[in-house]
Amino acid sequence: MLNRPSTPLQEDRVHSEELFRGRFLHAFRDTVRLPDGAQAVREYVVHPGAVMVIPMLEGPDGNLRAVMERQFRYPVGQTMVEFPAGKLDPGEATLACAQRELREETGYRASQWARLGVLHPVIAYSTEFIEVWLAKGLTAGERALDGGEFLEVFDIALDPLFHACMNGEITDAKTLVGAFWLQNHLQGRLPVQWQQVPAPESMP
Amino acid sequence: MLNRPSTPLQEDRVHSEELFRGRFLHAFRDTVRLPDGAQAVREYVVHPGAVMVIPMLEGPDGNLRAVMERQFRYPVGQTMVEFPAGKLDPGEATLACAQRELREETGYRASQWARLGVLHPVIAYSTEFIEVWLAKGLTAGERALDGGEFLEVFDIALDPLFHACMNGEITDAKTLVGAFWLQNHLQGRLPVQWQQVPAPESMP
Repeated sequence: MLNRPSTPLQEDRVHSEELFRGRFLHAFRDTVRLPDGAQAVREYVVHPGAVMVIPMLEGPDGNLRAVMERQFRYPVGQTMVEFPAGKLDPGEATLACAQRELREETGYRASQWARLGVLHPVIAYSTEFIEVWLAKGLTAGERALDGGEFLEVFDIALDPLFHACMNGEITDAKTLVGAFWLQNHLQGRLPVQWQQVPAPESMP
Repeated sequence: MLNRPSTPLQEDRVHSEELFRGRFLHAFRDTVRLPDGAQAVREYVVHPGAVMVIPMLEGPDGNLRAVMERQFRYPVGQTMVEFPAGKLDPGEATLACAQRELREETGYRASQWARLGVLHPVIAYSTEFIEVWLAKGLTAGERALDGGEFLEVFDIALDPLFHACMNGEITDAKTLVGAFWLQNHLQGRLPVQWQQVPAPESMP
């Protein structure tokens, strides 16, 4: 394994205190013991984890298209181009979350799903992970956005998508990683296992 | 531009309050006006921005190798495999920061630099951006780690690197994006402009 160190690197918790609990952000300050026995402070945000979905359509020309979103992201002050994503509810399985977020944000349901991988967006100061799923066999339906959520849904052919991931038009890290995993998948370097997933009847 | 919306999406600041200022995390809670005139709350961390460097060596077989690091990342509780990176000092240019972080963390100086792109790791709750630079023409030297910083430096051939970006061994988002930009660059899809950059004499 590439991440097995030859010298001790691990940091162990000595003490943990809550820094603050906001409506969204929940932060801690921990004292840790370093490999040399000294102590240091680590501040970080606790996050429940998230999923991102790369929904794929077949265009009129038979070529694949990806479903994406435009959403204004206040912390970076820009309208960002992203794949649909959202946080896990307590106890929610990642595939169930992926189905829910896809339906809520875009209206689509998908009949086939494949897990692409997991990424950590901000290892210096958040516990967040994002699991990435590919979805196909899409059926359009009604969106169900959360209150205060404004986003536009569109679809794009894959060549322009990959181009936008290299010319600065797309800068969202999770979306870049997902697009490049898709690129490698389509070029035969990243195999996935598709599952047939009927949409739950109980979904409103 | 892909990010130009057809309907208004922008959120405008109504009020801003500091949530807390830790030793590392600095967080705000803003009240914003939504496109429909309603108000909402946004909580986020303010970050000075960062750079990441992809340092490239020529191996004994003439093939390229990338210089990487193993570092224990407390928020995710794992030893992570990453490219060298660090935060911008106040007023510091990104290339100067890239040179400094490369030298401090790995000991290497590089004579040629090319900007690969910029990414936003966590658009939902941080202002952070990361500018990514390619570096070659490396000369080995002494590391100058910050106190309390423990990391291992190693180098790896590119095929195993790209493989590790797809099999779950590398999950750090900035490292994944940088590796895939490099992959596309080497395949001719992402041109860069190399600059000759003599190492500053004044560097200790």
